[in-house]
Amino acid sequence: MSLRIAEIFGPTIQGEGALIGQPTVFIRAGGCDYRCSWCDSLHAVDSRYRHDWQVMQPDEVMDRVVALSGGQPVMVSISGGNPAIQDFAPVIAQGRALGYRFACETQGSVARDWFADLDLLVLSPKPPSSGEQVDWVAFDRCLQAAGRADRILKIVIFDQRDLDWAQDVAARYPRLPLYLQPGNPETDPAQAVDPQDLADRMLWLVDQTVGRGWLRPRILPQLHVLIWGNRRGV
Amino acid sequence: MSLRIAEIFGPTIQGEGALIGQPTVFIRAGGCDYRCSWCDSLHAVDSRYRHDWQVMQPDEVMDRVVALSGGQPVMVSISGGNPAIQDFAPVIAQGRALGYRFACETQGSVARDWFADLDLLVLSPKPPSSGEQVDWVAFDRCLQAAGRADRILKIVIFDQRDLDWAQDVAARYPRLPLYLQPGNPETDPAQAVDPQDLADRMLWLVDQTVGRGWLRPRILPQLHVLIWGNRRGV
Repeated sequence: MSLRIAEIFGPTIQGEGALIGQPTVFIRAGGCDYRCSWCDSLHAVDSRYRHDWQVMQPDEVMDRVVALSGGQPVMVSISGGNPAIQDFAPVIAQGRALGYRFACETQGSVARDWFADLDLLVLSPKPPSSGEQVDWVAFDRCLQAAGRADRILKIVIFDQRDLDWAQDVAARYPRLPLYLQPGNPETDPAQAVDPQDLADRMLWLVDQTVGRGWLRPRILPQLHVLIWGNRRGV
Repeated sequence: MSLRIAEIFGPTIQGEGALIGQPTVFIRAGGCDYRCSWCDSLHAVDSRYRHDWQVMQPDEVMDRVVALSGGQPVMVSISGGNPAIQDFAPVIAQGRALGYRFACETQGSVARDWFADLDLLVLSPKPPSSGEQVDWVAFDRCLQAAGRADRILKIVIFDQRDLDWAQDVAARYPRLPLYLQPGNPETDPAQAVDPQDLADRMLWLVDQTVGRGWLRPRILPQLHVLIWGNRRGV
């Protein structure tokens, strides 16, 4: 079964969430069932770009990961787009046999058996500012499909309404580790990013979250945006 | 037994290391057996400031933590200075009875029985640029004292020599999670910090570490410096 791949790059550090700072090779799948208003990965989402996506066999994907990492079995992050609309089971099986570990990030709209083969499933339900609506039945199926893999919630926050919504979502899942991340309104890779803006957005989110006495979520920025702006492939 | 306390503040997010982003109340102990050339907490280290340190009883310390956190049992980070030169066992016992969790950060020069009562012991051996020299016998005693508490290594890197040294240290402790953090040469709280400088130092450290094919350490900035500069109490 072939895969549509937008890009494979690394090793670089994971920029966000539970594995922040961890050296990682990224497999970015092409294609998505969502179209978030503020999507920062349109080159892996919008079908306008689909002719840039490479059609690859699973062993070609793992060969590329092994080449990039010099055979060191690092963490591999499968993202997108929504990687769950494709079958990554063979890639994960081949990688695990070589000692690689796998994380996958998805919005939680499509459940897959191979979630159970991951080390970490990152579910990032999309808040109101995205313009999308979460199907909670599908979302719960994703959580169940993860089996014994670690599972975390990661929610991007653009405004107060998103934060209210995140607090409701968190209450549904009292036992899941929860990460909040300030939204990035500037997603043009040609545009330079001002690290001060990123600092300001972090300050706002920390103030709003801690300020309302909500002390459960971990709050993290997008380190890759701090370091490289919106450049791709880093 | 009374304690010398430089400051108690929070809740705010943990700015560095394994618990980065986690809402935390900080207890900063006064006094240190080291004097690192680039110390960013001189107000808790240099005995010139010792008359600013409050003498507190353990229950006064926990009362303050409870008041700041509104009774929510958050993570408490005991730092300094070197907190291991004082006896935090009663504070930890009182806090744990209320559901609080405790992390402690120390350079690893003084071992304490109460390390075993922590949730996390962060050992940050000081690299050559600090001007200090690690006593590895004492350091290993600290690791042993932690018992079943989680233990991590966190090393600040200012230059290539520090990075070489960190790689040697890492080889001594192949099973410990390892975090690297770019050094902050500007520690004057009155001086504004340019987030671009912090981004540049992260870029340098990621390039140097990943560039030499060293893919074990997680690499993280000091988020609190990004957000608040060198201001105290945040």
